[in-house]
Amino acid sequence: MAEEEKVEAEEDLIEILEPSSGPIDLARYVDYVRDPAAGAIATFEGTTRDTFEGKRVVELRYEAYVPMAARRLAAVCAEARAAWPVLRVAVAHRLGTVGVGEASVFVAASAVHRAEAMAACRYVIDEVKASVPIWKKEVYENGEVWKENREFLERREAAVGSVPERKEAACCCGSKVRVDEAATDGKNSAV
Amino acid sequence: MAEEEKVEAEEDLIEILEPSSGPIDLARYVDYVRDPAAGAIATFEGTTRDTFEGKRVVELRYEAYVPMAARRLAAVCAEARAAWPVLRVAVAHRLGTVGVGEASVFVAASAVHRAEAMAACRYVIDEVKASVPIWKKEVYENGEVWKENREFLERREAAVGSVPERKEAACCCGSKVRVDEAATDGKNSAV
Repeated sequence: MAEEEKVEAEEDLIEILEPSSGPIDLARYVDYVRDPAAGAIATFEGTTRDTFEGKRVVELRYEAYVPMAARRLAAVCAEARAAWPVLRVAVAHRLGTVGVGEASVFVAASAVHRAEAMAACRYVIDEVKASVPIWKKEVYENGEVWKENREFLERREAAVGSVPERKEAACCCGSKVRVDEAATDGKNSAV
Repeated sequence: MAEEEKVEAEEDLIEILEPSSGPIDLARYVDYVRDPAAGAIATFEGTTRDTFEGKRVVELRYEAYVPMAARRLAAVCAEARAAWPVLRVAVAHRLGTVGVGEASVFVAASAVHRAEAMAACRYVIDEVKASVPIWKKEVYENGEVWKENREFLERREAAVGSVPERKEAACCCGSKVRVDEAATDGKNSAV
């Protein structure tokens, strides 16, 4: 689960970083997408925030089924490339412990025009949250909980044909659920 | 025209960088918007690309009426803050010569959730292009031309009540026009 996985597909750089890798070197990914033909570079950085629903967050911990996560990330970048005339895309996701204020995920996309760079960047981070098998544990001052991303959950339900109507607005935070072995199996098989 | 202007309004950092400042220190602005309460940091970097309409671009040169540009940038950040629950915004714009591949403008915005960070970042760069009095000269291998941003032009026409219908799709590149003294006066007065 912890080994580093690096994928270069077409012009994309995809890295799932092992727990010992330390902070994401943001400049590495920005520089990767830099291109003389580019007029625009859009980035998104997902960071650990210090509170969730009024509770003090100490850190987040990420785990992934790495080969599948890397394959899905490569597919996401290919989808972005098919949808917009993107020059280069780079994605990094840390595994292990990510402290408050630190980046867990970073996306960079370059294009000739800004609308395309921003749209591709947005697509990639949305899909990372919704369809890449990387799981997050929130560690609070007084306990910890596996947190399944709401978007991932919705996508899984859609995939297995049992989608309850969700009345609440879409949000990037996800609902918190304790993940037991059965649920984990179901999550993997639904990807 | 060339002096550096720095504005800190509320939680925003706005810098118009003099020609001698060299490349934009991207990390400075990303670190400025970093916040323990933030789950998301979105950035946009506008870079000099090597071609425009088939012509080889050597470099871009930017000039601004600095006090007005700084005031308008501060207002743009305040507008973003009013529209979305943004934590911090930082904007830097270079003046003078910006070589191919280098950044002329950089925007960073942080928020609790990613949709808000990305929307605010997008708003700020769109408004920088459409309403901040900074002008660009494209220097080609065989000549140079002042390039008025199409969005800025449209906004100006809207302001003076003489908006010709534009059939072409909106684009971030702008139409190229030679700017004579009279046109420059008109541009300033329309801001």
